[in-house]
Order: sequence, then C-alpha cells, then structure tokens
Amino acid sequence: MEASEGGKIEEKAKRARNASFKLANVATEEKNKALLRIADSISANRERILAANAQDIKEAEVAVEEGKLSKPLLERLKLDDAKIEEMIKSVRDVAKLEDPVGKTLSAIELDNGLELFQVSCPIGVIGAVFESRPDVLVQISSLCLKTGNAVLLKGGSEARNSNATLFRVVADATATAGGEIPGGWIQLLETREDVREMLKLNEYIDLVVPRGSEQFVRYIQDNTSIMVLGHSEGICHVYVDRDADLDMALKICYDAKVQYPAVCNAMETLLVDSAIAHEFLPPMASRYNEAGVEIRGCPETQRILGDMDMGGKEIKPASDADWRTEYNDLIISIRVVNGVDEAIEHINRYGSGHTDAIVTSNDDTARKFLKFVDSSSVMHNASTRFSDGFRYGKGAEVGISTNKVHARGPVGLEGLVIYKYLLLGNGHVVAPYIGRGARQFTHRRLTKQIML
Amino acid sequence: MEASEGGKIEEKAKRARNASFKLANVATEEKNKALLRIADSISANRERILAANAQDIKEAEVAVEEGKLSKPLLERLKLDDAKIEEMIKSVRDVAKLEDPVGKTLSAIELDNGLELFQVSCPIGVIGAVFESRPDVLVQISSLCLKTGNAVLLKGGSEARNSNATLFRVVADATATAGGEIPGGWIQLLETREDVREMLKLNEYIDLVVPRGSEQFVRYIQDNTSIMVLGHSEGICHVYVDRDADLDMALKICYDAKVQYPAVCNAMETLLVDSAIAHEFLPPMASRYNEAGVEIRGCPETQRILGDMDMGGKEIKPASDADWRTEYNDLIISIRVVNGVDEAIEHINRYGSGHTDAIVTSNDDTARKFLKFVDSSSVMHNASTRFSDGFRYGKGAEVGISTNKVHARGPVGLEGLVIYKYLLLGNGHVVAPYIGRGARQFTHRRLTKQIML
Repeated sequence: MEASEGGKIEEKAKRARNASFKLANVATEEKNKALLRIADSISANRERILAANAQDIKEAEVAVEEGKLSKPLLERLKLDDAKIEEMIKSVRDVAKLEDPVGKTLSAIELDNGLELFQVSCPIGVIGAVFESRPDVLVQISSLCLKTGNAVLLKGGSEARNSNATLFRVVADATATAGGEIPGGWIQLLETREDVREMLKLNEYIDLVVPRGSEQFVRYIQDNTSIMVLGHSEGICHVYVDRDADLDMALKICYDAKVQYPAVCNAMETLLVDSAIAHEFLPPMASRYNEAGVEIRGCPETQRILGDMDMGGKEIKPASDADWRTEYNDLIISIRVVNGVDEAIEHINRYGSGHTDAIVTSNDDTARKFLKFVDSSSVMHNASTRFSDGFRYGKGAEVGISTNKVHARGPVGLEGLVIYKYLLLGNGHVVAPYIGRGARQFTHRRLTKQIML
Repeated sequence: MEASEGGKIEEKAKRARNASFKLANVATEEKNKALLRIADSISANRERILAANAQDIKEAEVAVEEGKLSKPLLERLKLDDAKIEEMIKSVRDVAKLEDPVGKTLSAIELDNGLELFQVSCPIGVIGAVFESRPDVLVQISSLCLKTGNAVLLKGGSEARNSNATLFRVVADATATAGGEIPGGWIQLLETREDVREMLKLNEYIDLVVPRGSEQFVRYIQDNTSIMVLGHSEGICHVYVDRDADLDMALKICYDAKVQYPAVCNAMETLLVDSAIAHEFLPPMASRYNEAGVEIRGCPETQRILGDMDMGGKEIKPASDADWRTEYNDLIISIRVVNGVDEAIEHINRYGSGHTDAIVTSNDDTARKFLKFVDSSSVMHNASTRFSDGFRYGKGAEVGISTNKVHARGPVGLEGLVIYKYLLLGNGHVVAPYIGRGARQFTHRRLTKQIML
C-alpha cells in the first residue's frame, strides 16, 4: 500500500530529525569542506541548472500571458551566469563565517566539583518555505548546514525544475562526504499540500523560516503553532522633528523612499512635525514629484501642498488604511503630527515593528524616540534602508524578524542557534541541598570553556 | 450595547499593550520601589487574602467531595501565614535581582559616525495562564514588572477569590506609584473563554507562559500561534554505563527517582548497560522496592529481576507507552540497552528534551552522551533533579522550557527579555553604499555602551 501524502512528509521530517542529531556535532572544518563542495558542484552543474531553469521560464512565460503569474515574479525566477556566480560566492562566503555552534556562553560552579556550562548548539530542524527566487534554496541550505541544522525546503511551484535540480546538486555534494554529513539532512517538499502537512509537524520541525510576500508570510504565520522567524510587513516611518536639520531630512527621506522602494526597509509613511511642516513639506514634495512618487496626505498635508505645482498631479487624501499599508512602490503617505509624542504614538499604533527613524538635532527628543518606539530597529539621523543583515555586519542574513521573541530585527546565523546546558558532577545528588541544614550552592561564575 | 466577551479581552490586551510601551522604560529604581510596595501591601492585606482563600477552600472542599477536584489540587490551593511570608520574600528577592533591561549587548561601527547598538528590552505583553497555586500570580507579576513587561493573568477557577484579591493588591500597590508604573500594565482574565480569546490575540500578546499539568500546557501549546514558553512533559532518563561507578549510580538513580517524584525533573526511565545490568539491577531494584517504587521492566529487566524477592510485588512488563510516560509518581520504567549509542537513541526517540543524565567514569563515553543527547539539560554523574532555575543560579525561575527557540532549559529573567537595534547616524543614507565604487562599511566592533 502506498503511504498517504501526509505520511510521506512526516517520513521526510523524521529523516531530517534523525540526521539533525548527527549534524549537530559535525566539526566546523567538515561543514566548511562540504560547503565548498556545494560551491564547486554548482559550478560544475551550471548547464544542468540553467536548462532546468529554462524549462521553468518557458512555463512561466505562458503563465504570465495567461495572467496567472506576475511579470516581476518571472524576473525573479530567471537564472543566468551572473546569478550562478553570485550563488557560488554566497556559499563560499558562508564557509568563511565563524561557526556559532559549540561556544561556551556561560559557565558557573554550582558547588565543589559540580559545574554547569551553557553551550550553543543548532536548533534542530528548520522548515524553509520561499517563493520564486531559486537562489534562496542554496542560500538557506548553506546557512542551515553551517549552523548544523537539518532542513526541509519548499520553493515556489513556478521554480519547480530549478529547485529540484539545485536540491539534487546540494544533496549530492554533501552525500559524497565520506559520511561526515549525515544523509537526509536536506529534504525537498513538492506541493502546497506538503507545506500544509509540514506546518503541523511540531514534533519534528523546530522553526519555520518563510521568505516571500506579505500575504505569503502571513499565511504561514496564521497556519502553524511552530515558531515562525520572519516578518510579514515592513511599514517603516521617518519622523522629521521641529529641531531637524532640514537638508539632512530631505536627504534621508529621499533615500528611505526612493533609493529602492520595493524592499521591506523602505519608508512607507512620512511623519512631519507641524512646527516645520510649512517649511519642509514643499521642497520634499517637489523632490518626490520629480522622482515620480505619488503622495497621499492627511488634511494638513493637503492644505500645505494644495497650492503647489505638482505637474498636474494632485495630493490624494490618505485614509486610515494608508497608515497600515506597505506600498513597496513609489507611493508615500504623509501625516503632520504635533511633535515627537504624537509621532511615537502613530508608529506604535500603525507600524509593523520593523524599522523607524527620527531626524532631529535635539538629543533629548532623539532619546525619547529611541526609547519609546517599539520597533526592532530604531534610528537617529539615518535612513531606514540600513536595516539589513549585511549592513549590520552579520555576514549572512537569515531574514528580518518582527517577532518579539528568539531573534529580532536583521537576523544572522545567531537566529539558527540555541543552547543546551551541560552539568558535570562527581556523583552529586539533590537530597543534601534540601530542607533543614541544607548544603548551600556556591554559584561562582567560571571563565573556563567546555570542549566536547 | 454591552461589549462581547471577546471584545472585552481584546480591550484588556490593548490596554496592556499601551501600558507596555511606557513600562519598558521605567527606571530600575522605580520598578524595585514598586516591587517593595507590592511586598508591603501583601503583608498589610494578609487577613483579606486569607479570607478570600478560605472562601475558595470552602468551595473546593465541596468539589473534592463531589469528585470534581483532586485532593492534591486542594492542597496546592491552600494559603497560610507561612505561604504568605514566602510570597513576600519572593517579591523582595525579585527586587534584589539585577535588571536585565537596557544592557548594551553588542556595539559596532558601520561607518564613520554611524554606530549600531543592540540593547536589551522587555518583550512587551506576556499572557500567563496557571492552575491552582495562587502564589504563582504574585510570582509571575513580579517577574514581569521587574523585566518591564505588561501581563495578562489567568489563574485556576478554583482559586478565583484568592486570585482576584491578590490581583487587586498587586495592581493597587503599583497604581499608587505617583504615575511611574503605568496603569493597565496588569490585567486579570476570569474565564476559560477569556483564555481562548487571549490565545488568538497575536497582535497584542507576545509570549504565553503556562504553568500547570502536562495536559494543561499541551492544550495551550496546541491552541495558539503565539510563542509558548514552557514544557508539557518531563520524561527524564538516567543511563548507567558499563564504566559507571555502581555505588555512585545507585545514589544518583535513587535521588533522581525517589527524592521528589512529583516534579518534572525527576527520572521516569532508567536505562542500564547490558554489560553491568546483572550486577547493578538487583541492588537498585531492592532499594527502589524499599522506597515503594513500582518497577516496570523490559523483558531483559524482568529476566534479571525475576528471581528476586520483592516482597510479593512483581516486575510488570514495560510497554512502548511506558517509555513515553511521565509518571510523576513512585513508578519507574527500566530498559536494558546495548551501550551508550542505544541509550542515546532511546532518549532522543522517547524523551521530552528536558533533562537526561549519564553515570560513567569513561570520559569518552560521557562526551558522546553530552554531545548527542538533544535535551535542554544533559548531565554527567549528577542527578537530573538539579535541573532548576534556582539551582542553576538564576535567582528566579520563569519556568523550564523544552522549546528549541528563544529560551531553553531552566529560564530566568532572561526569558522575558529581547533586544532592539539602535542606529545612530549623522545624516547617513544608503545610496553611496550601493553599486559601482560603493562606499565600504567599516564593521568595527565597539566596546562602548549606550545610555538612554
């Protein structure tokens, strides 16, 4: 009898779980060697990968014509020599990163001869779900391998052939390892139904990492009780304070909106202090207008900009829905607020906890903003666009998290690592530490490391 | 029109969320003052608390008679002067702990004048759900206050009056603070329906902390997509290796099972190396027998102990279900295994990732066990009963977590804290760092702290 779909996915998850115990203890050197083999193998299989991708592109072009797939998605699907080179480089870069596993995070003597070590270790099994870009498969699997995590991967169905080929290349490159990397550490899921099954497997999957559109990530978040690392929306704000250097503000607000509007750390809403709104908004609006940015304003913004020549374009009214919208496009909503307190309130109410910035020369006002804005990145006199793993110096980015637990903001390898406690005794039992005349713990900090 | 139940809970959660922004920035000194006021107020309201508890006890005794409530639950419900003193002391102890909020965890220069700080901060809003013991309300709310988190509390319905009174005492003691502690930081939920509502409020609640029986915690875990910090089961093992000092093994296995069997860090399954099973099992079984421990064994255990005089009691067969059972009682399952590899396999398969120990004098074998057992606490030559926040030197225990993310093992205040990134610039924008001739980041580690 054939196993049911659900059973098949559970079987894959079990195999990944079993592999994870061994993978957790593979030496750094062996993991790096395997990563370099993956890079070499991608290079050696370049033609095969491009052929599989060409097949996907052919099918996707039909889907675009039929209106079933968007043009930008088709663009992101496309691989070429340059993208393959980037892939290879990114895997080699991961090999160069410091291994975050096996570090002694703290050590304490509980009593004479009884020592407790907190040691970093992999999380276990990661479920990675992503849309379109096939290079994400390579990126996520190399980050998981480096951190000693097993991984279940599911890419977009439009990249089916590319993903299947890349998966084989990665899996085969690590399988020829002479047994150091346990078989089964990487598993490919194939259908949406597979993902639905996976999201139920709390017993085998420890963390889900989704990459894709807001709706996609929200679907994942709403349909699992496994921890999800990621963000759905990036509703980022810049607040221009009454004490701002207005030239600086123009520069920052332009960069945050225009430099690359399609990404999550781009600004969606501009908040302007009423005290300088008359002075600041006209030149800002003029710059936005030149860059082709559509402006939606609160009534006060409309009033101030009402008389301006915007080349025939009008300032549309911003609704409550606008304050909650991530445009990811050359559209901005603008609101005039009464000072920093109202700005903070707006951000904590409508924001998504991603990245928010203040422009001011007043240190007290900046301090207030940095303290009270409850977002994963809060900035003073800098563009929201800096909120990114590479720019933050993390080497590799697992994702940007708007969670309030585990890992927050741009997440590097540390997001794929947790710790275990190791207690080394000499026959110690608890009984003497209980009740009257109980033996006392020493609880003395130790500086030594444990090497396993 | 009256608001619906759901709306009421959402309203409470919103109020807690709003309070959390302010509470996150209350100075350590003010939080400690408020904690001491709570302690004083519990002392001053002793009679009122005991009277409310007496009412709960009266109703609970009827419920016990009617078979609706278990006797141990009734015991845990009962407050007396000694328990009130303990409560007061525990609040004062929390005031003495170091404040984990506002610490600079890392600092890095991204470029000249562009500095990034990672600073610890509260998580936000905690949903705490617990059974029976009313002192848990005081403990959890003081841990939340110390770490700057707002909290929604729901205790067992059998402790309704005690909880309502303790809640009032805590809320009032912090409300008289001259405004430093924001009103609304603590909210009481009243019904099971309230909890069901709360578990859906991902938008306002950041972390759920359940305290109670295995079934209770599992219910919470299965019914929310909010992160749950805690553990359902504690299926702990001791493995006695062929190279064990058998006297030490007898001592550890006795302590781990008998010293306090009702707790999660007590041993449930004893694994014995076949090489020493004949020598070790008879004296161990004899000790267990004296202590009234019921033994369930694998066929080999039954064979070895078959001829022993156990005072008329027989060794029952252990089923597959036994390996997955947390008895929390004077019952043990025993399995003879073929060395450390089989022991590790058994633990990773049947264990709950809580605490597992090996007894051996062979360092290589110990190292293997410490590395490959995937549990939050792994021990060498020590009793599993040490796995506990106080014993681990954490001062206060939020709970023991069998999660693989956020916080693992015995969790102290650090489990209620996360971080935010603060980026301080001087008009920096991203554009110059992009494309050809891009400006390079310096990514230089800084040792300075940020003070807000």
